[in-house]
This record gives sequence, C-alpha cells and structure tokens, in this order.
Amino acid sequence: MVDIPYSAVDRIIRKGGAERVSKSAIEVLQKELEDYGITIARIGTEIASHVGKKTIDGDTISLAIRKKKLGSG
Amino acid sequence: MVDIPYSAVDRIIRKGGAERVSKSAIEVLQKELEDYGITIARIGTEIASHVGKKTIDGDTISLAIRKKKLGSG
Repeated sequence: MVDIPYSAVDRIIRKGGAERVSKSAIEVLQKELEDYGITIARIGTEIASHVGKKTIDGDTISLAIRKKKLGSG
Repeated sequence: MVDIPYSAVDRIIRKGGAERVSKSAIEVLQKELEDYGITIARIGTEIASHVGKKTIDGDTISLAIRKKKLGSG
C-alpha cells in the first residue's frame, strides 16, 4: 500500500526540473520515498525506545536522518 | 510549499514502528522526503537531458537513486 499521493510525487519531480514525467517515474520515486521514510522512522523509533520515550518528535527524526546519512543507521 | 500530505507522513512514521508521533516529527520528515525527492528528480533530469530525453521515466529515476546512494549525484 502506498501512502504518498501520485500528484504529490509528480509535483516533486517537476520541482526537480522535469518537463515531462512518465507514470513509471512517479511509481519508482513514490516507492523510494516511502521506503526511505519508513527507514528513518524505524531508526527514530529505536532511538526513542533506547531513551525511554514513547513519542517520536522532530529532534528524534532529525537525529535518525543524520544517522542514516552517516550510514550508521 | 509542501507537497506530501501530513496524513501520509504520519502513516509512514507509524509503519516504522512509532506509537505516538508529534507534529514536529511529521514536519521534519515531510521536509526531508521532499528535499530527497527533488534531489533525485534533479539528478534524473540531468541524466535525461544528457541523453536527449525529454521525459523522465522509471529507469531514469532508478538510475538517479543509485547515483545518489553512491554519492556521485
């Protein structure tokens, strides 16, 4: 099941400079963004759990993004 | 301007295992996903332009994702 609407992904691709966007481009980027988001959320959930927090907040997500980019997540 | 709806980002974070999600978590991940998507699209647009294609398709987006992950985009 996908969560990010087709139209949102289409707009994002056009913001990147594309004039014409195929359906397959939208489908591939949609899946990538969802997978990436779930990975970040999973890292964030582990961090929160580690420090005994039940709520994921922006600071935790920011830390999860940094960990992911460092390849340590 | 943001393109990915709040509700979609909230569902993605919950798929990553979070029970409680703060507004700030959604805002931070929303911006990250959009920035990441635009970066992929920009790389894809450059690739397409390089080979004289006007339409961005799924193969081009897949290649852009691989280039980004290799740090060469």
